[in-house]
Amino acid sequence: MKNENLSMLCDFYELTMSNGYFKNGFYKKNVYFDLFFRKVPDNGGFAITAGLEQVIEYIKDLHFDENDIEFLKGKGIFDEQFLDYLRNFNFSGDIYAVPEGTPVFPNEPILTVKAPAIEAQLIETFLLLTINHQSLIATKANRIVRAAQGRAVLEFGSRRAQGASGAVDGARAAFIGGCLGTACTLTDELYGVPAGGTMAHSWIQMFDSEYDAFRTYCELYPDNPTLLVDTYNTLKSGIPNAIKVFIEVLLPQGKTDCAIRLDSGDISYLSKKARKMLDEAGLENCKITASNSLDEYLIRDLMMQGAQIDNFGVGERLITSSSSPVFGGVYKLVAVENEIGEIVPKIKVSENTTKITNPHFKKVYRYFDNESGKALADELCLYDEVVDATKPRTIFDPNATWKTKTITNFTAKELQVPIFKNGECVYDSPNINEIADYCRKQVSLLWDEVKRFENPHTYYVDLSKKLYEIKNILLNVYGN
Amino acid sequence: MKNENLSMLCDFYELTMSNGYFKNGFYKKNVYFDLFFRKVPDNGGFAITAGLEQVIEYIKDLHFDENDIEFLKGKGIFDEQFLDYLRNFNFSGDIYAVPEGTPVFPNEPILTVKAPAIEAQLIETFLLLTINHQSLIATKANRIVRAAQGRAVLEFGSRRAQGASGAVDGARAAFIGGCLGTACTLTDELYGVPAGGTMAHSWIQMFDSEYDAFRTYCELYPDNPTLLVDTYNTLKSGIPNAIKVFIEVLLPQGKTDCAIRLDSGDISYLSKKARKMLDEAGLENCKITASNSLDEYLIRDLMMQGAQIDNFGVGERLITSSSSPVFGGVYKLVAVENEIGEIVPKIKVSENTTKITNPHFKKVYRYFDNESGKALADELCLYDEVVDATKPRTIFDPNATWKTKTITNFTAKELQVPIFKNGECVYDSPNINEIADYCRKQVSLLWDEVKRFENPHTYYVDLSKKLYEIKNILLNVYGN
Repeated sequence: MKNENLSMLCDFYELTMSNGYFKNGFYKKNVYFDLFFRKVPDNGGFAITAGLEQVIEYIKDLHFDENDIEFLKGKGIFDEQFLDYLRNFNFSGDIYAVPEGTPVFPNEPILTVKAPAIEAQLIETFLLLTINHQSLIATKANRIVRAAQGRAVLEFGSRRAQGASGAVDGARAAFIGGCLGTACTLTDELYGVPAGGTMAHSWIQMFDSEYDAFRTYCELYPDNPTLLVDTYNTLKSGIPNAIKVFIEVLLPQGKTDCAIRLDSGDISYLSKKARKMLDEAGLENCKITASNSLDEYLIRDLMMQGAQIDNFGVGERLITSSSSPVFGGVYKLVAVENEIGEIVPKIKVSENTTKITNPHFKKVYRYFDNESGKALADELCLYDEVVDATKPRTIFDPNATWKTKTITNFTAKELQVPIFKNGECVYDSPNINEIADYCRKQVSLLWDEVKRFENPHTYYVDLSKKLYEIKNILLNVYGN
Repeated sequence: MKNENLSMLCDFYELTMSNGYFKNGFYKKNVYFDLFFRKVPDNGGFAITAGLEQVIEYIKDLHFDENDIEFLKGKGIFDEQFLDYLRNFNFSGDIYAVPEGTPVFPNEPILTVKAPAIEAQLIETFLLLTINHQSLIATKANRIVRAAQGRAVLEFGSRRAQGASGAVDGARAAFIGGCLGTACTLTDELYGVPAGGTMAHSWIQMFDSEYDAFRTYCELYPDNPTLLVDTYNTLKSGIPNAIKVFIEVLLPQGKTDCAIRLDSGDISYLSKKARKMLDEAGLENCKITASNSLDEYLIRDLMMQGAQIDNFGVGERLITSSSSPVFGGVYKLVAVENEIGEIVPKIKVSENTTKITNPHFKKVYRYFDNESGKALADELCLYDEVVDATKPRTIFDPNATWKTKTITNFTAKELQVPIFKNGECVYDSPNINEIADYCRKQVSLLWDEVKRFENPHTYYVDLSKKLYEIKNILLNVYGN
């Protein structure tokens, strides 16, 4: 890619609207936008949020340089004073967000922006695409990792990713979701996600024989080499040659850590045969890695068949989340400040009722049961509501208000934390290992019913009584 | 994204293999790799190749800087001399490729690399991901454009793209495939794909009334404004307000070009109602744009229902090719040069017969019928075969050799053209409009049977007799 300015990675209508806000004096008016999604990919019970660190970098770097201004000028529709305004543009508002690696649910704000109208508008596209992309991949990775029931899952998908950042940032998100490593070297260099990998079929073809290729490799990398055994014939040639080389090269050095990789054929059958052949040769420490268009469904199936696989290398179906490749996050106006600084809630109604928004500047609470430690429900409250966890709290389903539940002996945790205040970053991003650990811990606090793949239990995301009432008033005004 | 070096966007095994090639003296050995795919996305009859321009930029910029070398050194497995070699690394080989915008078929090389082993290996991941991504989106865009039967299709998907380059380069590929524009501002600035767009729901919500929002917009942008009419109620409020404002603001200025956009609800029903209301108000010139999770299947259905839509804005289902989000291009070793400079063909066999490669350094011919101008078949030949189009040529199906066809009165065109020779770029990339025009023309040379969506005719990609014989000899040696 050219040395592009990602501030220009915005939908063109952000600029036409901003020019309009500028001409109408709205650029000083504070507005509130929520970023949220409506449906979990793969019909899952929850998503994992990711991408915040890249949003922070983007916000810090926001600017329009002279090339950008010239380009916009050439369009012939932007006000000169607006272009001057863009020359000195930066972000002066507040951002609150749910930390990366947190399980999140439909219709709750993952990220909230309070800023002058133009600033809040111009960042829409980049915020959405970054959170959408990385949350999609973190969510998918978490599904695949759960299907593998403790076996290692490695991300191998760069070559099938949708573009360079699809590969690089996708591998970052996969690690947050629970993968233990990636094949992508650049993701390791940039983010510290451990990269690994050994050989392609071309390595084997480059030598006069498979045996020579294996032997050369093990002599060069005697510490835990993985040999790819399916270039010619897995059972007749690949595994016997691998066994021969492991015994000739590794054992005399006192080394027993090694692995083979199966990349085609009937993985379940081949893995059982391979395990038997390896064990009979005394190579009980030799691990078996499988790759070849895997995802959580195939892995679940392999586990059921008793496949003898220790590590899963997962490529295209993870890095594109191929069975559900869109994370449908949206960015909606929820409030504006009026002339005297009052926050006026806004709603968007729609012919599709699922597209109706939750108005107002809000807080998101997650309630944890003090006995089990498990997450019980989330509640969206007004920005100035305070939940008193020392008293029983009655929550209700906003779509069926007669369904109520009173919770006691719980802890209330605010999900969003301040990221920017008045344009200053006030958040220390955790490192990638901390984020991945946090994700593992938070997912362990969900009930199994929320985590199952088929028909998961719908986790409660309720509205506080005050918020519910405000939403109803607005629906009565605008809903018809 | 940080100021990353895309030369590091490679699978880690490219580096472990390259280090091995270096230690074994293979780094001077010329090898031949083909990039090809095995299956058309969405079970279509052909794909559109794209991404070559970004490959060229990448090859020109290939290098490892000191940070990269330090990072690799830290891994503790790379030879010092190999790292020195990387310090001075550049590409010295040849690349041949099918120009962007060309219809291509399974198992024919889209791109061929001849280079010393390490150079050919290290570029694998970036070449694959770039060609895979852009060909995926160009192919999907072409399907959607064909479904729209002449109505304009605009790419609106940045916010749902899989990462920044998914959005920016995806919009470029969509234009190659036939979209007439994009919402992505940066794609316009970088590549000259025209960006457009008018307003989001937030614009309307920002004002005290929908009417005020529309009126302000039309006063500001009286040249062909598009008003989004579904924020509150499309038929009762949105369209009546739009009509009022068009009549009050545009008509007195003598302007009649304008549009409305439908983004939710029953698009077919609403478009017919809208057309009637607009026509009755004398706004026959007002166009109707539809958006909301469209793709070729929904558009085909809307056309069948007689929906009154002039422009389609297509988002997430185009920019992720959501119904078929992986383009499975692979990069396989097909030949190596031996000590005396002879080209030795290589094959990869597999338990999955569809994964068996076509060996050797090859040429791809496309044969066009001189009477109809239509493409008849492609033939893979050895690099030094010359097709004499003045004589009848008998081609045969390599999977059913008794199926033969003799063609006469045809023109033979070589599909691949030289891109790099001895590391020097020898190709002038056409501009984006030329590529899109070329694509339109080439697609028009395919028979309708190849272009249909359901069960398209399988276009012939045959092997020359010489190539077929070599493949069979290698299969007999390695195939068991």
